[in-house]
Amino acid sequence: MSSAPLTLYELAGADPELRFSPHCWKTRMALAHKGLESQRIAWRFSDKARIAFSRQGAVPVLVDGDQSISDSWRIALHLEQRYPERPSLFGSRDAIALAGFVNRWADSMLLPAVARIILLDVYEQLADEDREYFRSSREAHFGTSLEQLVAPQAKHLEQLRQVLAPLRQTLKGQPFLAGEAPAYADYSVFGMFMWARCTSGEELLAPNDILHAWRERLLDAFGGLARAATLASPLETGARHVQ
Amino acid sequence: MSSAPLTLYELAGADPELRFSPHCWKTRMALAHKGLESQRIAWRFSDKARIAFSRQGAVPVLVDGDQSISDSWRIALHLEQRYPERPSLFGSRDAIALAGFVNRWADSMLLPAVARIILLDVYEQLADEDREYFRSSREAHFGTSLEQLVAPQAKHLEQLRQVLAPLRQTLKGQPFLAGEAPAYADYSVFGMFMWARCTSGEELLAPNDILHAWRERLLDAFGGLARAATLASPLETGARHVQ
Repeated sequence: MSSAPLTLYELAGADPELRFSPHCWKTRMALAHKGLESQRIAWRFSDKARIAFSRQGAVPVLVDGDQSISDSWRIALHLEQRYPERPSLFGSRDAIALAGFVNRWADSMLLPAVARIILLDVYEQLADEDREYFRSSREAHFGTSLEQLVAPQAKHLEQLRQVLAPLRQTLKGQPFLAGEAPAYADYSVFGMFMWARCTSGEELLAPNDILHAWRERLLDAFGGLARAATLASPLETGARHVQ
Repeated sequence: MSSAPLTLYELAGADPELRFSPHCWKTRMALAHKGLESQRIAWRFSDKARIAFSRQGAVPVLVDGDQSISDSWRIALHLEQRYPERPSLFGSRDAIALAGFVNRWADSMLLPAVARIILLDVYEQLADEDREYFRSSREAHFGTSLEQLVAPQAKHLEQLRQVLAPLRQTLKGQPFLAGEAPAYADYSVFGMFMWARCTSGEELLAPNDILHAWRERLLDAFGGLARAATLASPLETGARHVQ
């Protein structure tokens, strides 16, 4: 079978190779799981017109032949339906419903907890033309400046630790959230950690945390795809601390 | 097939018919899902000696022939393995791993959020001999008196609303957490609502909340098993408000 004609629009920083969106990482891992190649196109918040064909304004957007699909969850369902002969992202129909819950838990609980630690780092990696949009939209959402948001760092690391409790307990009994092998439920959570890894020098997990070992296994998956991701330069992340 | 020789030890209040434990409700619903009858025995916190055969001190304890199983999650796995010819509690092996995450999310996130609203009501339903143990153990856990714990009620209802966000989002696309039909993932969450229903006059969900309709469907399941549960008398729950 030849490579599918897939194109993936991914959020990029000032460095076009810096691809840090948690939702785009979910899709990257899902494509790798299915063994699908894609042409990856760097996109920025200020490029809304460039994805107007998708009739919305956010990435990831996947173009698959004459179809365009937005929203990482809908992309996962599309890949599962369109490429049933390739490794399943869910394992069974029963597992899709529960993977949907995990994905929403990651978006509604884990994403804000990570945002409170790294959002100023994310800002500092953005292209100049994206910065005002990002700052104003995120400050309106959180009701405070990015600098104030991330300032009580120890408190936020403790809150993140609490949010991760059910994941930590689950991984005591199995190597991956989806069971013996990784699947989409793992990627929907792992995307949040890639967001932090690509933009921030902050270490979210202690080396002896069972989640640290789980994250290492996913960094190694698919020939080390995620481990090879371009990271923000240490100089920039090292300069970010609020005084 | 004749009824299996099952015995279930359940936590009871001063009224032995008041069976309110969230974990015991998970097991009640799991047995009903499997179409299994059981002899239900009222147990109290002060009855540790009576379940000493299970080598631990908490209910539910299920006695199945010559086996005794404690911990609602382990009981669910036991029922699935022991009665494979009856309706599956999970649907597939892939779904077991994710249902385990949902169960742990319910225990680590939802249970404390509900406790902060109803724990004084629970206390008031207990038999006299259970009250001191319950108060001292729960007050040590939460670091405050039961009266102080439940006092900022509006804040706790808002926190519960936030905790339930991923469940609410998931149920926008499907009637049950497990998909088209209820399964153990639903019961592990529903148990928390039965805990509140049986002990407290507080309404945790607005009538127009999508979760309200989901809870109604589960109250109606298995011939209205949960809807028929004995509730605390309105007089007692009405008297509980902190002045």
